[in-house]
Amino acid sequence: MKTLSQNRCFGGTQGVYSHASDACGVDMTFGLFVPEEAALGPVPVLWFLSGLTCTHENAMIKAGMQGWAAEQGIAVVFPDTSPRGEGVANDDAFDLGQGAGFYVNATQAPWAPHFRMWDYISRELPDLIGANFALDMDRQAITGHSMGGHGALTLAMGLPGRFRSVSAFAPICHPTQSDWGRKQFTAYLGADESAWAAHDATLLMKDKGFDGPVLIDTGTADQFGDLLGTEHLAAAMAARRQDGVLRLQKGYDHSYFFIATFMEDHVDFHAQALYA
Amino acid sequence: MKTLSQNRCFGGTQGVYSHASDACGVDMTFGLFVPEEAALGPVPVLWFLSGLTCTHENAMIKAGMQGWAAEQGIAVVFPDTSPRGEGVANDDAFDLGQGAGFYVNATQAPWAPHFRMWDYISRELPDLIGANFALDMDRQAITGHSMGGHGALTLAMGLPGRFRSVSAFAPICHPTQSDWGRKQFTAYLGADESAWAAHDATLLMKDKGFDGPVLIDTGTADQFGDLLGTEHLAAAMAARRQDGVLRLQKGYDHSYFFIATFMEDHVDFHAQALYA
Repeated sequence: MKTLSQNRCFGGTQGVYSHASDACGVDMTFGLFVPEEAALGPVPVLWFLSGLTCTHENAMIKAGMQGWAAEQGIAVVFPDTSPRGEGVANDDAFDLGQGAGFYVNATQAPWAPHFRMWDYISRELPDLIGANFALDMDRQAITGHSMGGHGALTLAMGLPGRFRSVSAFAPICHPTQSDWGRKQFTAYLGADESAWAAHDATLLMKDKGFDGPVLIDTGTADQFGDLLGTEHLAAAMAARRQDGVLRLQKGYDHSYFFIATFMEDHVDFHAQALYA
Repeated sequence: MKTLSQNRCFGGTQGVYSHASDACGVDMTFGLFVPEEAALGPVPVLWFLSGLTCTHENAMIKAGMQGWAAEQGIAVVFPDTSPRGEGVANDDAFDLGQGAGFYVNATQAPWAPHFRMWDYISRELPDLIGANFALDMDRQAITGHSMGGHGALTLAMGLPGRFRSVSAFAPICHPTQSDWGRKQFTAYLGADESAWAAHDATLLMKDKGFDGPVLIDTGTADQFGDLLGTEHLAAAMAARRQDGVLRLQKGYDHSYFFIATFMEDHVDFHAQALYA
């Protein structure tokens, strides 16, 4: 693991690190905020999965997350959204290939060799940060934005017992029925739709739900509202009687200005679960 | 005036606008956060002047300022740091020309036609926003970072009665004796150093000080510490018995992670003066 940068931030350290990833077969970069409490002992961990076109950096500099995490004594991991670089497949579209990993393990050419973001986020990166920083990997929570909200919800429901709480900002909720999903799952997972269900938050909510609290914020003025399919997840949550809150935030769009506005609520929500 | 974007943000509106500037003889772009209280009547205004290489956008997305401003019911203006575009003089160095206006009116070729940032910030932009938004221009305060901290301090002391309070993050404090200053003042203002004094915070502090409270934060690990000349302003403030606080923040560098960490303190500091 290589340290690319470290900046003092809200009493803790905002670092950026890179490492040779087995899962993705290429060097991967991630951000990690560690609060000052980590000097006294392992601290809980909150994951922030980013959306289309983002790297590890966007949320790290634009979401205003570190201040609230510092207040709660929680570390925050900011992974990249896909493998990158020469030799890694790509597409001209912004919503496929590099920057658009969709948190799945690709099985199809040309994506299969590197696009293994499910394994990377669920197995390799937790092992790496757990071994190298004072983090309490028994206390994890997860959130994300848009494609990263999809990732947070599907990882939380797909790995029972791993995360104590899950939240999302404007998540893609029902990708198997959206243009943000069908195109990518066809490319990464193939035409057989039975392989897609494990990566659809609405289907997972219908099938098994989440054993913990759920918080979702989506703006009423979200310019991608039709692609998100919020109504399907809302119906599934209500039908299951899932412990959860869905907030439709009046006038907010899909931007980081929206995310920053409600970040305090999300970090506090996770802190409550992590310190329960 | 043209609206380039508006995003709902902490209950208010983060806008980006452009306009044909008389002072700079070119179109200028600025950001403006207006809190929801502006719907009820004019709100106080806090200026944030940015540093070298920045546009109106950096602080707007990285400083975490809007949340605290919303809490206090204060608007925030994010001006650009220089004129830009074709036909505007420039230099290959990052610290001269476009992105490096130093908040002066240039008198020398090739800068004189467009580099009139003092007039732009002190006269034209206040008139424009005062006429177009629900802002109380009798209640203004100013802050900034690095070159923008220099701008905040020199405008505050150079325009007595205009600003109720001034603060700065890692400001350039004594540009007439620094490589961040001598080079630019020679280019913009000419070799006669008597024209420089009005743009040196340390000299202004010695000469007249500021009729209100001053707050300055600078990191002990600032990688540009030698260029800032903090010790000279510190000595001048102490000698004058200026109402003010200078905080040397242990371990912090020159980045926006440092700015974001102490932004709450600065907004609260200005709110106290603006609502006094």
